Amino acid sequence: MANKMAACIFCKIVKGEIPCFKLFESDKALAFLDINPLSRGHALVIPKIHGEKLTDIPDDHLSELLPIAKKLAIASGAKDFNILQNNGRIAHQEVDHVHVHMIPKPNEEEGMGIRWPQQKTDMDKLKALAEEIKSKM
Amino acid sequence: MANKMAACIFCKIVKGEIPCFKLFESDKALAFLDINPLSRGHALVIPKIHGEKLTDIPDDHLSELLPIAKKLAIASGAKDFNILQNNGRIAHQEVDHVHVHMIPKPNEEEGMGIRWPQQKTDMDKLKALAEEIKSKM
Repeated sequence: MANKMAACIFCKIVKGEIPCFKLFESDKALAFLDINPLSRGHALVIPKIHGEKLTDIPDDHLSELLPIAKKLAIASGAKDFNILQNNGRIAHQEVDHVHVHMIPKPNEEEGMGIRWPQQKTDMDKLKALAEEIKSKM
Repeated sequence: MANKMAACIFCKIVKGEIPCFKLFESDKALAFLDINPLSRGHALVIPKIHGEKLTDIPDDHLSELLPIAKKLAIASGAKDFNILQNNGRIAHQEVDHVHVHMIPKPNEEEGMGIRWPQQKTDMDKLKALAEEIKSKM
């Protein structure tokens, strides 16, 4: 964990060891522009503490992220936008420190693109699955 | 606004007028299975109050959504997953009541697909943009 943090580019940004285009900062979170944007205003909000996935971050650090993403959306002037947070390489996560993207979607070409391979609905299976997941919440 | 709420399918689910496969509920939020899933365990968390976009929801209602999405991820057993919240039709929003997707990504075929049309980085433009957005935060 200590090693991972030492090498983490977002931990270095939090510590000021690497510069960023900072937009907002609180005790627990930092927001800055994505330097490889998908659209004008594409920004990130991260918890200051290191954690690879959403499931690694304590609730009181997670709870700040969406209100800050909302601030980013308002300040960017984006009318339409996507909020995205990826967990795992197969899910398109590229930096292993939790980050929430706020990506303006001004037109079809710019911003993120989404493929939506919807599965067939099986109500009986969904019912059983809901019971299973609910029992683990 | 009152008319929009009366017609809103997620407001009807909150009021119990339409059934759902409920997974979790708090004073301010509700989580249930997506009945058109992209993968096993695909679930939604919504604020109970009506709001079309992230920017319409008060911070104290937004702050619960990611901690609940984290619970869903843990309970679903998903190792890799995407958190997605779409704002506007062009950004793939289909129901006009804020909802956060937790979409397990078990393999390349299932779960959401992402296109990432990265733009060229122009540090001078980014710097100016950061100043502009920061002044509005």
